[in-house]
Amino acid sequence: MYGRTTLRILSSRATFHYRSVERFYCAARPGPHYCRGPAMTCPKSVLGCRETYFWHSHGFHDFRYQAYEDRTSVIEEPLDPFSLVSDELSAIAKRLRLMVVAEVPKLALATECFFRMGAQGKSFRAAVLLLMSKALPMPLPQMTADGVFICLKELDARHKCIAETAEMIYVAGRLHDNVLDDAETNCVMGSLNSVMGNKLSVLAGDFLLSRAFVALANLKNTEVISLLAIVVEHLVSGETMQMTTSLEQRRSMEYYLQKTFYKTASLFANSCKAIAFLAGQTAEVELLAYNYGRNLGMAYQLIDDVLDFTGSSSSLGKGSLSDINKNIVTAPILFAMEEYPQLREVVDRGFGNRSDVELALDYLHKSRGLDRTRELAAEYADEAVKAIEALPQSDDEDVIKSRRALVNLTGRVITGTK
Amino acid sequence: MYGRTTLRILSSRATFHYRSVERFYCAARPGPHYCRGPAMTCPKSVLGCRETYFWHSHGFHDFRYQAYEDRTSVIEEPLDPFSLVSDELSAIAKRLRLMVVAEVPKLALATECFFRMGAQGKSFRAAVLLLMSKALPMPLPQMTADGVFICLKELDARHKCIAETAEMIYVAGRLHDNVLDDAETNCVMGSLNSVMGNKLSVLAGDFLLSRAFVALANLKNTEVISLLAIVVEHLVSGETMQMTTSLEQRRSMEYYLQKTFYKTASLFANSCKAIAFLAGQTAEVELLAYNYGRNLGMAYQLIDDVLDFTGSSSSLGKGSLSDINKNIVTAPILFAMEEYPQLREVVDRGFGNRSDVELALDYLHKSRGLDRTRELAAEYADEAVKAIEALPQSDDEDVIKSRRALVNLTGRVITGTK
Repeated sequence: MYGRTTLRILSSRATFHYRSVERFYCAARPGPHYCRGPAMTCPKSVLGCRETYFWHSHGFHDFRYQAYEDRTSVIEEPLDPFSLVSDELSAIAKRLRLMVVAEVPKLALATECFFRMGAQGKSFRAAVLLLMSKALPMPLPQMTADGVFICLKELDARHKCIAETAEMIYVAGRLHDNVLDDAETNCVMGSLNSVMGNKLSVLAGDFLLSRAFVALANLKNTEVISLLAIVVEHLVSGETMQMTTSLEQRRSMEYYLQKTFYKTASLFANSCKAIAFLAGQTAEVELLAYNYGRNLGMAYQLIDDVLDFTGSSSSLGKGSLSDINKNIVTAPILFAMEEYPQLREVVDRGFGNRSDVELALDYLHKSRGLDRTRELAAEYADEAVKAIEALPQSDDEDVIKSRRALVNLTGRVITGTK
Repeated sequence: MYGRTTLRILSSRATFHYRSVERFYCAARPGPHYCRGPAMTCPKSVLGCRETYFWHSHGFHDFRYQAYEDRTSVIEEPLDPFSLVSDELSAIAKRLRLMVVAEVPKLALATECFFRMGAQGKSFRAAVLLLMSKALPMPLPQMTADGVFICLKELDARHKCIAETAEMIYVAGRLHDNVLDDAETNCVMGSLNSVMGNKLSVLAGDFLLSRAFVALANLKNTEVISLLAIVVEHLVSGETMQMTTSLEQRRSMEYYLQKTFYKTASLFANSCKAIAFLAGQTAEVELLAYNYGRNLGMAYQLIDDVLDFTGSSSSLGKGSLSDINKNIVTAPILFAMEEYPQLREVVDRGFGNRSDVELALDYLHKSRGLDRTRELAAEYADEAVKAIEALPQSDDEDVIKSRRALVNLTGRVITGTK
């Protein structure tokens, strides 16, 4: 779980592995399009700061977490972030199931996926968004386009709609990804696809997408619709980038991080921003919400890519290796390639045969690839924590608790216990 | 092409075959959800009127068309409806191509589909919508949600956006349908899918959908976003209904017509309504635009189902038989079943072997199934013409010409020369 260890600031041991990341951030364009790309905020050291850390059991991140807890003087009892929003999460799950079962009975199997995923992943995206909605400063009274004031209860309903929509878009993306991958994986969605077939999976994905946009349109806020439409576009861009890469792109950390933003972090970032936007927060708070989501999402995917090699704690240190078996190059291999340039040839050959996969795994385990990926994830998680810390001060106990929960989530993400 | 024959009102020969259709319309619920279902308007005889027609070479419809031309006193020269909007159609095609090629080069193949389909189908949906935008009465000055007045030029751009979006949604649906059908057809989209593979087809469809919603969100009109989101939902519902039917549903004209509305007519109906809504037309005019689109769409699909058996004029009377080969029961077979109840057993067996297909085709050609489908299409086309006729009078020559073009399109649809 979430161990309490100490941050140890030592020498400049951790700087070298950010070279490729730095290249990426230098290449990324600044400007007003901050909601479209991953370049807005990034780990401090990446921006040239000389602070360096010794990585040990996620100690760096734990320290920040503890510091935050001390500062906010919240009771020290262990916090389960999901318990704070468990009622809302159940309500969302129930509403989604009813909607699909009632309206397109033939797609009812797709609802199963919601529940099986919900049970496994605890509707992670919805939980983040519901917590974000509670963590923001008390909003100013809001008015719709029709000039009607929105009360807090109504705002709450609108936030739940964003959480629901984000889950729908996420599951739709997964359903379509699994069609693309011929449902070869043995994960929940994969087995669902093999039961219901590609036909129904594509349709169920389309149904969820259309429902998401119908629900969003009912919010009567075109900015929010834009944000979520961009998420869908990013999901496609990310998947396309993953599918069709040149040799050079496959070796590039920049390309990998861009793809990771599109495939995973954009949904967190833009839907967190939508939560803030709907609540009538300032542009600064919107940006902090966006940065929390973006950095959390990046950390989430990096750790997911580590777990693909190592497995979760329950799987005795053995991952499914689904990425490498699908010829997808992720951060651990990219970092390993920096230490062992001879791995590049293996990567270039495309993991078409078993011996190349074994060879790559040998290099990976000899290298610091996995640790460096975890370190990078921790940097992103730290940026996410900073975004929460930078929110306007609040004395409201619920707000403080929700912020603590959001910080806690970053810890769960980097320890893979989400 | 568009022959000039005469309407012959004879005896009550055509009434019996509307029984099942009547059942459908009785079952459909009335109420405020007129944009969601096909029950709003329908051929007169279906609603119980005893007017009956003798079908011969689409004469009934030609008569209405000629009558409309006489009344509006527009010059009698042949009219090519596409020529009225050819510049806009080219601009849309160009913009769509640039968009896809520039932003997701790997999906560039998908743009080819736009052009090949555009060349064959003359971007039929976009043409209908551009003509509708010119056929409406001069709009009142419009204001956006931000309180900015929209000039006519801006309205024109917004209408083009709807036309573009409708094409994108249509092509996205086709790409996904073809994935579902394992690209077994040899049509343009089918061969595209077989070239680019299921993976890219699903992604290209998703990309187009997300782009459509980004573009719609930029219009800052949530009503319009709702209308188009409902279209996507209907496309899914229609495809699901087609894929997964019980024996009883397969024999039901009601079920077939509902599915046809969802799969084809809803896009025409709701996007025509969106055109009227954006132009600030009255609710009555919105409804007329919707009814034109809905009835044109129903006619379009019915004739498409006929052509699947007979082929177009260029294919020497032989259709691709793709529906029956995919075990999809359409109107011609349903009408034939009313005349030859013994066909029901063959339908129930599911066309799994060649001899059953041959047997069904024998019954079909002995029956009036194809003619009755054409008659029903003509009824819908007639309702579409009535919607145009009911628009507020205008002396504007461009408006008159555009209405004539919309009427002409109904003729092209029922003669299969669209």
